[in-house]
Amino acid sequence: MKRLAGPAIFASGLPRPRNFRANRYPFRAESHFLYLIGAPLQGAALVIEPSVATLYAEPPSPEEALWSGPEPTLEELGDRLEISVRPITELRIAGETAFLPPQDYETACWLENLLDREVEPSSGPELEGIDRALAEAMIDLRLRHDDAAIDQLRQAAHVTTAAHRAGLAATRPNLYECAVRARMEAAIIEHGMTTSYGSIVTVHGEVLHNERHDGLLQSGDLLLADVGAETPEGWAGDVTRTWPVTGRFSSTQRELYDVVLKSQLAAIEAVRPGVRYRDVHRVAGRTLVEGLVELGILRGEPDDLYERGAGALFFPHGVGHLLGLDVHDMEDLGDRAGYAPGRTRATSRGDRFLRLDRDLEPGMAVTIEPGFYRIPEIIDNPAQVGELESALDRTVLARFSDVRGIRIEDDVLVTRTAAEVLTHGIPKTISEVESAIGA
Amino acid sequence: MKRLAGPAIFASGLPRPRNFRANRYPFRAESHFLYLIGAPLQGAALVIEPSVATLYAEPPSPEEALWSGPEPTLEELGDRLEISVRPITELRIAGETAFLPPQDYETACWLENLLDREVEPSSGPELEGIDRALAEAMIDLRLRHDDAAIDQLRQAAHVTTAAHRAGLAATRPNLYECAVRARMEAAIIEHGMTTSYGSIVTVHGEVLHNERHDGLLQSGDLLLADVGAETPEGWAGDVTRTWPVTGRFSSTQRELYDVVLKSQLAAIEAVRPGVRYRDVHRVAGRTLVEGLVELGILRGEPDDLYERGAGALFFPHGVGHLLGLDVHDMEDLGDRAGYAPGRTRATSRGDRFLRLDRDLEPGMAVTIEPGFYRIPEIIDNPAQVGELESALDRTVLARFSDVRGIRIEDDVLVTRTAAEVLTHGIPKTISEVESAIGA
Repeated sequence: MKRLAGPAIFASGLPRPRNFRANRYPFRAESHFLYLIGAPLQGAALVIEPSVATLYAEPPSPEEALWSGPEPTLEELGDRLEISVRPITELRIAGETAFLPPQDYETACWLENLLDREVEPSSGPELEGIDRALAEAMIDLRLRHDDAAIDQLRQAAHVTTAAHRAGLAATRPNLYECAVRARMEAAIIEHGMTTSYGSIVTVHGEVLHNERHDGLLQSGDLLLADVGAETPEGWAGDVTRTWPVTGRFSSTQRELYDVVLKSQLAAIEAVRPGVRYRDVHRVAGRTLVEGLVELGILRGEPDDLYERGAGALFFPHGVGHLLGLDVHDMEDLGDRAGYAPGRTRATSRGDRFLRLDRDLEPGMAVTIEPGFYRIPEIIDNPAQVGELESALDRTVLARFSDVRGIRIEDDVLVTRTAAEVLTHGIPKTISEVESAIGA
Repeated sequence: MKRLAGPAIFASGLPRPRNFRANRYPFRAESHFLYLIGAPLQGAALVIEPSVATLYAEPPSPEEALWSGPEPTLEELGDRLEISVRPITELRIAGETAFLPPQDYETACWLENLLDREVEPSSGPELEGIDRALAEAMIDLRLRHDDAAIDQLRQAAHVTTAAHRAGLAATRPNLYECAVRARMEAAIIEHGMTTSYGSIVTVHGEVLHNERHDGLLQSGDLLLADVGAETPEGWAGDVTRTWPVTGRFSSTQRELYDVVLKSQLAAIEAVRPGVRYRDVHRVAGRTLVEGLVELGILRGEPDDLYERGAGALFFPHGVGHLLGLDVHDMEDLGDRAGYAPGRTRATSRGDRFLRLDRDLEPGMAVTIEPGFYRIPEIIDNPAQVGELESALDRTVLARFSDVRGIRIEDDVLVTRTAAEVLTHGIPKTISEVESAIGA
């Protein structure tokens, strides 16, 4: 409120129709609204003025009670949320009012009519003027998590842990990927939570955004599972593990897994207040390159190889991102949250997909998720490999053909002195992973 | 194609953003597109002219292959779907072209620009002119299922059966509702399917559209589970069962369960070609009233009580609806699919929520789902009960206080002579249900 020159409005959003109007996707309120109100109300709006905050909401209707059960009165809602609540029909806008773009069309139309200004859904990256100032105020609030937020992240991490343990325990050869996915998501649903993003559960980990789950788990395969839980208040977990379908890593899988694990541990070790996140990313990449040189897949001096982009041949994405109410926190505002003022995305192959480049501060939560992937579209493409061909020992690489993709990802809270891994309870070392499979 | 005076376009739709643009709800293509093409392509459009049909789709991009894996070329896609496929950039519209409104905003905007006509998402109920003629042609196609459609409905029924069996097996006191929901949805995910609507799994079955799953299963409770599977091609199952948390119905639960079961069986028995669906609804209602008179909850002559609306005191919704690619099939077109030309919704309490009033024909699939609910907003409200108060024995009703809501729902295919219950494998009689609980 102190930061605002005039009023601001935060819409909660509305459910989206799926195949017809009454068949809707599960409602998920806008993250900025959730941050300030903490309850996923549908079709509500919070109006903040420099001296007063009011929540406007739909009063319960007797007709609706028949179908949806009794709802709290607005007064009861106000008592629970400790804010003044008025019927949404009383909402009037006086003077220029800042907003952040919602994700759904109906709410955007409603805001457009209310504010008499253009409102494009999901247009947060293009904000200007008072809306941009509002975005920056929200980023300042949400970048560093308070105790209540950290408690939510811990809850999400706890259930994400249960999901990964369930996935490990359910794995055996000759199942389909969807069978493991089912156990992981069941652990999330069972705790009254939802997935915070579309689950990746695949024996083709080299397909980074693999949305298919119809592959067969065959002996010798590694299964990559990138699955996270979201609390009812909307806070996210985001974890990846990669494990052998049979319960035992092959020697080649073991060697490469250890290279990725070293990279991840080195990156986590680098996380502390004052460190620039891009440097954490580079620690991960350089450590990966060192490991690949040790295995003989790459030839040369690690630092030199890394500077020439050898890391990105096998690890073409960023080492992580902000984590909070969104799995990529505040990505609705584009790079404004992830990139400190004055910093923009690099164009180099190794850095251009990096979603975060701020100096870390206590209370920030980030993911750390390096990987090793044999992506045919990169490694088999001379235009991508370029002059690095001479640094690549394809004979040695061919020995590791039973590895298509490995990623190891944890959720990490920046503390005052170092980093705390929120998802520390998930098996990660080779012996921990092996003893959890089929258990 | 024979029915069309000019070209028609069917858009497949696009995924909807959830909390930011890259975090999307699972994509579900438009049902009319799925009916004609059978594959959930994103951002594609089928153009049908009186003599030719062409599918326009996004060609695979090398950049995308890095993230999403290799995709078939348009030529391979055309071979698989047995249709001519062209890049979507080649799509040109010549002359007035009919469309059916999509559910998502982005696709509506895209169509609006392409056709130079207003396109409002989810506005199917208001179609006029050539669009309405197109809607009627699609309804004529989709009302009666062909063998391929029936095969899909059988697959959905098969997995819906697995879900209900898993739910029954997982039930015991002191779990939360979400634990049973988790097992039911896991059975669906495990088979590579998705839920066809938001699952209802609740000890408060009297809340008809209960979306909460945080209730505790206590001894003496009945659990109502309304859960259905959807095949990857989009075809729906939709089943409700109600079972005792302890594994044993109480004597009062048993009596009321049998009343609802008799009503459901009588309604299924009434399903055959030529029968008006509203009459099936009335068979269910009258049978329910007869049972309530036998139990002493209602006093009077059943036919007279039913005509006076006594059925709707305890069974205020319709006995079912069309089933197909949508759980309420073609509800995107409003009542036009469910109501035969010249028929409209009744205003009476017992019939006004009925979604279907056609004469049944072989190949139609419907649900049959009567229920008994003690809904406080009805039964405790003198304005709702009105003159039926004198027909209600509240002392007897109070004896049944351990029943809040019972619904029994199956998916039924109209055959040439009678009805086939597609979901016959799900425990339904009291002894079948009791022996499946905790098993």
